[in-house]
Amino acid sequence: MANPTTAGKFIVIEGLEGAGKSSAIALVRDFLHQLNGAEPVCTREPGGTPTAEKIRDLVKQVSNEDPLCDEAECLLMYAARAQLVANVIKPALAKGDWVLGDRHNLSSLAYQGGGRGLLPLVQAVSRATLGDFAPDLTLYLDIPPSLGLARAANRGALDRIEQQAIEFFERARDTYLALAAADANIEVIDATQPLEKVHADILAVLKQRLVD
Amino acid sequence: MANPTTAGKFIVIEGLEGAGKSSAIALVRDFLHQLNGAEPVCTREPGGTPTAEKIRDLVKQVSNEDPLCDEAECLLMYAARAQLVANVIKPALAKGDWVLGDRHNLSSLAYQGGGRGLLPLVQAVSRATLGDFAPDLTLYLDIPPSLGLARAANRGALDRIEQQAIEFFERARDTYLALAAADANIEVIDATQPLEKVHADILAVLKQRLVD
Repeated sequence: MANPTTAGKFIVIEGLEGAGKSSAIALVRDFLHQLNGAEPVCTREPGGTPTAEKIRDLVKQVSNEDPLCDEAECLLMYAARAQLVANVIKPALAKGDWVLGDRHNLSSLAYQGGGRGLLPLVQAVSRATLGDFAPDLTLYLDIPPSLGLARAANRGALDRIEQQAIEFFERARDTYLALAAADANIEVIDATQPLEKVHADILAVLKQRLVD
Repeated sequence: MANPTTAGKFIVIEGLEGAGKSSAIALVRDFLHQLNGAEPVCTREPGGTPTAEKIRDLVKQVSNEDPLCDEAECLLMYAARAQLVANVIKPALAKGDWVLGDRHNLSSLAYQGGGRGLLPLVQAVSRATLGDFAPDLTLYLDIPPSLGLARAANRGALDRIEQQAIEFFERARDTYLALAAADANIEVIDATQPLEKVHADILAVLKQRLVD
């Protein structure tokens, strides 16, 4: 049980495919466990509730018969997010639990907004859906797409979104960096460094933002 | 084949459950067949493409474990609509075909906007998703919810949306009527009349709007 006198916080890990999100999440999860004496509630997006996982399947599948249009992709991402925020994240925070997210709103702004060139649609839907709800802290693991995609390809078959051209990911990265520069609650981690250095940087940010 | 020199039009039938949409659609379909010498492309919403039908299933299902939040319901409706417009309606109109829709955007404005009290969200998502795309003509079959729901209940089990309280449908009807009053491309048909009179009114509108 989290200490009920301490309000929970919502921490998110973001980054392109191959940036090292999984090992970063394991590190942050351990850090939060030690800090709070309890495991954080861990979420992934899109997904994280039974309905949102079904939406994830729709977004990830490749259909030649009925290719997913960009607007539908964006709206499905936000439908899954609305469901996760309403039924998992907000109830957890209200109980005092901490929440650790594998992706959140910044992914939609970067991928659907920057990557697909739909930033006005994404921002309008984001505002209308989430209002002023936002993570307390986001760690963005920054890596050039060429390096990240080479790592991701080594893991196996690429899904529909991972199959986009490299220019898509370049635009997503540019959007990540631009939004991070404008938001004090987003910290950029240089994920091209050796893993130990990446993890040391993450721990330094966590200590500074959550402990000091 | 539709006459390739005639641009296709998008005609929509709207109304609460039990308003008589099905028989109206059969009537309008026959009318358009005679007018154009070809069957119109018939759509239903939510649904009408393989992906949109899967989204329809998500919207219609009842889940006690993970109840669908209002925002997710709205976004799923627009995801299905974006998919249908991009992959079915716009391509058909571009070929010169006519399209006959069983519900379209007005349903979301009435049900999610009016019924759920989410009109600002629905209008923002509608504008962002559809831009200025809209039906050429909408026939709204107007009926008091008490009468419509009694008819719908006679047809069998009610789905998740049909199970809402009557006040939900009263707000939806108020929104239908308010939006119809403000839009010259929406015609209100009094669906409490005997069926022959309802159909005569529909045919009169079609002739006036599409033939004269």
